[in-house]
Amino acid sequence: MTGKMYDKVRSFKSLRGVEESIDLMFKSLKKPDLGVSEIAVSDSLHHFCAVHVLSRFDSPKYDKSAVDGYAVISEDVLSSSTTNPTVLRVIQEIRIDALKEKIRPLCNGETAIVYTGSPLPANSNAVVMVEDTKLEGSSVLVYRSVPQWLNVSRRGEDFVKGSVVVEKGVLIRPWHLAALLSTGSGKIKVFRRLRVGVLSTGSELKYSTSQNKSVIDSTKPLILSMSCEEFCEPVDLGVVEDDVEIISSKILEASSGVDAIVTTGGTSVGATDLVEEAVTKIGYSSVLFYGVRMRPGRPTGLALVQGKPVFMLSGYPVAAFTGFEVFVKPAINFLRGSKPLSYPVIKACLTRRLVKPVGVKAFVRVKVEKYYKGGFSVEPMRLTGSGLLSSLTRGNGLLIMEEGLEGYDEGESVDVLLFQPLEG
Amino acid sequence: MTGKMYDKVRSFKSLRGVEESIDLMFKSLKKPDLGVSEIAVSDSLHHFCAVHVLSRFDSPKYDKSAVDGYAVISEDVLSSSTTNPTVLRVIQEIRIDALKEKIRPLCNGETAIVYTGSPLPANSNAVVMVEDTKLEGSSVLVYRSVPQWLNVSRRGEDFVKGSVVVEKGVLIRPWHLAALLSTGSGKIKVFRRLRVGVLSTGSELKYSTSQNKSVIDSTKPLILSMSCEEFCEPVDLGVVEDDVEIISSKILEASSGVDAIVTTGGTSVGATDLVEEAVTKIGYSSVLFYGVRMRPGRPTGLALVQGKPVFMLSGYPVAAFTGFEVFVKPAINFLRGSKPLSYPVIKACLTRRLVKPVGVKAFVRVKVEKYYKGGFSVEPMRLTGSGLLSSLTRGNGLLIMEEGLEGYDEGESVDVLLFQPLEG
Repeated sequence: MTGKMYDKVRSFKSLRGVEESIDLMFKSLKKPDLGVSEIAVSDSLHHFCAVHVLSRFDSPKYDKSAVDGYAVISEDVLSSSTTNPTVLRVIQEIRIDALKEKIRPLCNGETAIVYTGSPLPANSNAVVMVEDTKLEGSSVLVYRSVPQWLNVSRRGEDFVKGSVVVEKGVLIRPWHLAALLSTGSGKIKVFRRLRVGVLSTGSELKYSTSQNKSVIDSTKPLILSMSCEEFCEPVDLGVVEDDVEIISSKILEASSGVDAIVTTGGTSVGATDLVEEAVTKIGYSSVLFYGVRMRPGRPTGLALVQGKPVFMLSGYPVAAFTGFEVFVKPAINFLRGSKPLSYPVIKACLTRRLVKPVGVKAFVRVKVEKYYKGGFSVEPMRLTGSGLLSSLTRGNGLLIMEEGLEGYDEGESVDVLLFQPLEG
Repeated sequence: MTGKMYDKVRSFKSLRGVEESIDLMFKSLKKPDLGVSEIAVSDSLHHFCAVHVLSRFDSPKYDKSAVDGYAVISEDVLSSSTTNPTVLRVIQEIRIDALKEKIRPLCNGETAIVYTGSPLPANSNAVVMVEDTKLEGSSVLVYRSVPQWLNVSRRGEDFVKGSVVVEKGVLIRPWHLAALLSTGSGKIKVFRRLRVGVLSTGSELKYSTSQNKSVIDSTKPLILSMSCEEFCEPVDLGVVEDDVEIISSKILEASSGVDAIVTTGGTSVGATDLVEEAVTKIGYSSVLFYGVRMRPGRPTGLALVQGKPVFMLSGYPVAAFTGFEVFVKPAINFLRGSKPLSYPVIKACLTRRLVKPVGVKAFVRVKVEKYYKGGFSVEPMRLTGSGLLSSLTRGNGLLIMEEGLEGYDEGESVDVLLFQPLEG
């Protein structure tokens, strides 16, 4: 029976603001040398591009027809109309796979049959759609005029040779992959995946037996999965008991094999404080902040161990979720030089009044729904309850309330971050 | 030299509207028996839940303390204040992993040290935070009153035993995975992934040689990757030349091994028409629609072959992208009974006037950016150019313009679907 264990709780008196903590984080993080590997573009979906990839050629490679029809010299058909068609001589048919150098140039009064994608013959500068023509033997009647370059895909109009197709740091989505292939890249340099190690602390987790399965660690799997969704390689560092020495050596040991560590605090008193203490004991380490004026997620901290960031998150799943969103995600993107995959923001009207203490930034889980009058309604799930996973599984958004704010009125319009798509 | 190849083009005269086509699709699709497998919850990220999963117990399993402090009978501390503290006798310390049945019930005048997560002793109904107390030997001074259930996580407040934790058809995200684990599910039944076969047609692709690599198939990799992002299992069915018999037998052969087929039309004249013709030749097949009043993506169709949907998309990447968004994605979600993963919608102001022909639904690729005055601007990339991948790699949104619409004015506020997150 002891009040000693409560000392740690009291040490939270010196809390930092969220923005101040984020600033500290960005000032201290150093980009690791992630290493680059070359892979087939066809395997590159959801990798991060390690270089600016340039187009190997003009794409299209030459002026191409954008429709099925007749390649013409636009001046030839200037006066064409339904009542006064121009007659042109069909001198060739150009297939899509025709070799440019084998195509005869057009002279005035001549035309060529082209298909969508066919290279245009030299001298031609427009295409008349087949619907506006009538073939008669080896001549064609053209019933309308076409301005220069009508129905033509100009050489290089998609990508000019040497222009950037995909920038360094971009997450490769299906259209990037297709654009890379279409501009001559068969292989691509991508960054090695960022390795995020996740360590649970808590004797109650370590020694949870089959007789006493009352304490289930859902926070580590949550953070491992969130790292996965951020296209990192999650590394399960296991569970350690509430012992400073053991936590210290585990973090030190793990730090050489990963790019960042996330610890989840277990649920013991002072468990996250133990991590802070453990980290402090390690050489070449420093605690940047510990304890943040946010809710949930007050016991959140960041240290550097051997140059690697160690995010100390709460053992409570929703508090850990918030800590991951606020600190780990931006850090991940900084470390690998990628653009953040931010959640979409939606404007919605509060279904009820929402108050919170001043001096703490709140991340309220909410449910956004389509409103009967059009627009969207937002129903707060719960202001407190950092252990309540149902606020995430039943909700779909985060409403962020700034530190200085006292609350919102019913009906007020607010911005919500959607972590799940809207239903319906 | 022939006008015959153009006959197909003319057959497009009987186009259907997008909504009518979608209705036809939903009336004809039949859900396949996807089959179910049981996997570890820890491996279930991004699978689709095949049953309603119920909580195995109340979660939390019992009333727990939500803070570090003292469990009390709230009536005992009713008159407590900083000037008039209540003195309670500390009878026990309850650790987080304490067995509920070994905890002594409280009597009036008694209290127990509890930690965040500790089970409460019987008869207690509130917790006083440690900050509002002072321990003196085996007694504690309580400096404030607490209403019933203050600082208590009530039994079952996250999930009541037997309540639905994750619904059938839900895509398992990190918080679902965590909620499943925390409510006693170690394994989960998930659907087999929907198999989407993708077949390229086009002799120019089939016979593209090293001397003539002018025609690169970027559309099949695009559709394979998009299927991947929809959490399907993409099956590469290869490339076939523009030959009705070969296309027929390839589709028939493939249909038994996949749940849906997507063909991309190559770029030859009538190539997609060839697919339509090929499909019609197969027994037990029917073409539901072919040719849609949309732009890009006019040559889009749907047939059923042996009960399996065959989506006939353009060979042009952006037209195929649009066809996939409009038809294949909703069909995929219908077939596996999942909720659509719709893109977020954002309201933004047009930077310039945008016109389109009446009688065609347009899917304009746009770039949405943060506006200097707050709000968002939307810059149309290109109304035409179904081959221009740069409109997808440089853009981030789709502006949908309904059939009857003539256009939008500069400065008009429009809804945009974001397929890529906003920058910054």
